[in-house]
Amino acid sequence: MNYDDILALDEKDPLKHCKDLFQERPGFVHLDANSLGSMPKSVPAHLAQVLQHEWADERSASWAAANWMARPMQIGAAISRLIGAAPEDTLAYDNTTLNLFKLLTDALKLNPGRNVVLSEKTTFPTNLHVAQGLENAHSDQLIVVYADPEKDILDAITEDVAVVYLSQVDYRSGRRFNIAEINAKARSVGALTLWDLSHSAGAIPLDMEGTQTDFAVGCGYKYLCGGPGGPAWLYVNKKHQNKIWPEISGWMSHADIFSFSEQFEPAEGVLRHMTGTPQVIANEIFWCAAEIWNTVEPEQVWAKHRSLSETLVTLIKEQCGDLGVQLASPENYDERGGHVCIRVPGEGNKVVEALMEKNITSSFRYPDAMRFGLSPLYHSHADMWEAAQRLRTVVQEQAVPA
Amino acid sequence: MNYDDILALDEKDPLKHCKDLFQERPGFVHLDANSLGSMPKSVPAHLAQVLQHEWADERSASWAAANWMARPMQIGAAISRLIGAAPEDTLAYDNTTLNLFKLLTDALKLNPGRNVVLSEKTTFPTNLHVAQGLENAHSDQLIVVYADPEKDILDAITEDVAVVYLSQVDYRSGRRFNIAEINAKARSVGALTLWDLSHSAGAIPLDMEGTQTDFAVGCGYKYLCGGPGGPAWLYVNKKHQNKIWPEISGWMSHADIFSFSEQFEPAEGVLRHMTGTPQVIANEIFWCAAEIWNTVEPEQVWAKHRSLSETLVTLIKEQCGDLGVQLASPENYDERGGHVCIRVPGEGNKVVEALMEKNITSSFRYPDAMRFGLSPLYHSHADMWEAAQRLRTVVQEQAVPA
Repeated sequence: MNYDDILALDEKDPLKHCKDLFQERPGFVHLDANSLGSMPKSVPAHLAQVLQHEWADERSASWAAANWMARPMQIGAAISRLIGAAPEDTLAYDNTTLNLFKLLTDALKLNPGRNVVLSEKTTFPTNLHVAQGLENAHSDQLIVVYADPEKDILDAITEDVAVVYLSQVDYRSGRRFNIAEINAKARSVGALTLWDLSHSAGAIPLDMEGTQTDFAVGCGYKYLCGGPGGPAWLYVNKKHQNKIWPEISGWMSHADIFSFSEQFEPAEGVLRHMTGTPQVIANEIFWCAAEIWNTVEPEQVWAKHRSLSETLVTLIKEQCGDLGVQLASPENYDERGGHVCIRVPGEGNKVVEALMEKNITSSFRYPDAMRFGLSPLYHSHADMWEAAQRLRTVVQEQAVPA
Repeated sequence: MNYDDILALDEKDPLKHCKDLFQERPGFVHLDANSLGSMPKSVPAHLAQVLQHEWADERSASWAAANWMARPMQIGAAISRLIGAAPEDTLAYDNTTLNLFKLLTDALKLNPGRNVVLSEKTTFPTNLHVAQGLENAHSDQLIVVYADPEKDILDAITEDVAVVYLSQVDYRSGRRFNIAEINAKARSVGALTLWDLSHSAGAIPLDMEGTQTDFAVGCGYKYLCGGPGGPAWLYVNKKHQNKIWPEISGWMSHADIFSFSEQFEPAEGVLRHMTGTPQVIANEIFWCAAEIWNTVEPEQVWAKHRSLSETLVTLIKEQCGDLGVQLASPENYDERGGHVCIRVPGEGNKVVEALMEKNITSSFRYPDAMRFGLSPLYHSHADMWEAAQRLRTVVQEQAVPA
């Protein structure tokens, strides 16, 4: 590919206007959408207004007069389009760890008589830790079993499995599990599924309803651009809603919040997974990104991400292959998640640092994963070109002994 | 009391400079510190800098370079001074409901062989709901027992009680429980204590260490001024730390977060109650208030609050007593929490609304509690005078049939 090819791809990109909606730093290319997505340009002004008007001036009256109580469902609705779910089944609340805890306890209650939580060790640590914490506290109720990564995971989904509990995308290699296939196997043996889509949502095609996913969660501040430490999201298939009380019941999970009832009565649907007070300010930040997501078609998002990912892989091979740089993610886009992972000669973390000096942000995960997280909203094909060009320079420089 | 008395009290107030550190609306008196504390003036500029520099410019590098990971303990340290605790035993994280869940499950594990959670029905609903949710899920492990509000709570603390689980301050009447007395009775029968101090911390004297409190939580956005929906806090007595795994284990609860270890190993102390990613932006807002708290002496805070509360009670009696306005909180300050509660003739919610029209914010809780939440940082004695004066006008106007 030459630079004219790149410019042609950008020219015909239906999402090319989105780049200008984000606060980008001139000359920099931040390829860390898998870690922390960019800030929508609308955030500072919106937040200044929320702080002054809703907090300082209107104060506690804002609980009723502003959008403070409605935002978790409004943001959930924006995310629902990207995961193939109905708006009312998706909620933005708390963090990913907490949402995993809520839905794993739900799933175990909905599959009584089984106690195996099936995971595997490329699943992100926090997911494993949530299950291990429950195993430690309730060893009579669950045991965590780790599938052998060398074998087909489908073979490990057997009739003793209560919940298949996986991150779709390996946070190091970027390998993507096939949700439809795994869900089908799980259904055939009566197991439920709980997916972590932190490295998927806002990048690759997802279809909660079509794949009959039971439960899912995801991070809000990576591809979704919800802001650092902002709320995560959760999805519950309608057929599981309203059957059981949430493990964590609280004021905001109540059917009638402002009745101040002494007796808990769970709200309908995903609302029962609200716990305490919503993260008002963080939600207002996320809302700025949600407004952008609401203006784009999911199919355009997914096509753009595929195009960026395939372009970057091609350029790295063409421009850096002779220097020993190798693709560490699967060759086939349909087997890759939101990021592209490569291996470089020498020490990967030093290449990441040197590339940072050249204003390209990537990230490193031990032992040898160098990752580029690609945003269908704010990255261009020209950004992929810049990354490959500067990577070539850095790898060449690193190869020369100091 | 006359207005000169009021001005004299303000003149000698060692915290009088603090009012100017908050964004107050000229002509308004917001007596809802029990609901949503004021915004420190430093918030908008600090947040603008965090958004532009730490998020938009430095991005994922800020996880290491900025204060994102340290804030939960830094804010906890600021709060620790107000609750009579060591800084390392106090953490700002998640919301109050979640912190209640974490510490109630801790307490039950630390008192095996007992299954009674003792509460009473003036405890805030979210607290009751957390316990009821656990009771629903694990009826073999706990039962919630409600003390008779007509009898002395001390008599209900018996040898079958695992945890005494109370809000110190009744969110309606403002009645304050005596923590030292209840803790002593609990200790004498081998029960643990978990206090919700949402309507206490930042207003009235607290002494976690002196009273040998086992566990405590509190809201961050009321008296503490941490911002709407910002993080709550939790306290764990050192003798209970490091004994058990947290019920909710996650990446941030791990002893070595950036090892990305597959196997959970809990962090030391209260750090094991971090769950997922910290609420970065919300923490930065809370930090602005924490910096103010760090400049004042807790004894000055408590003396100021007492003075405001006693002044307001005196003024309401003197100026509105003849109109039938009655104190609904205890007469004795040492039995009152952060707010003052009154009963007015007619419909209390209409008086609250009419007072709001006169730029005095109070709040109403069914059936007849009209509440004034008093901040030792941003309220003056002159504010108490304005509240009593305008309350008199409103009650007089309401008494005239329309």
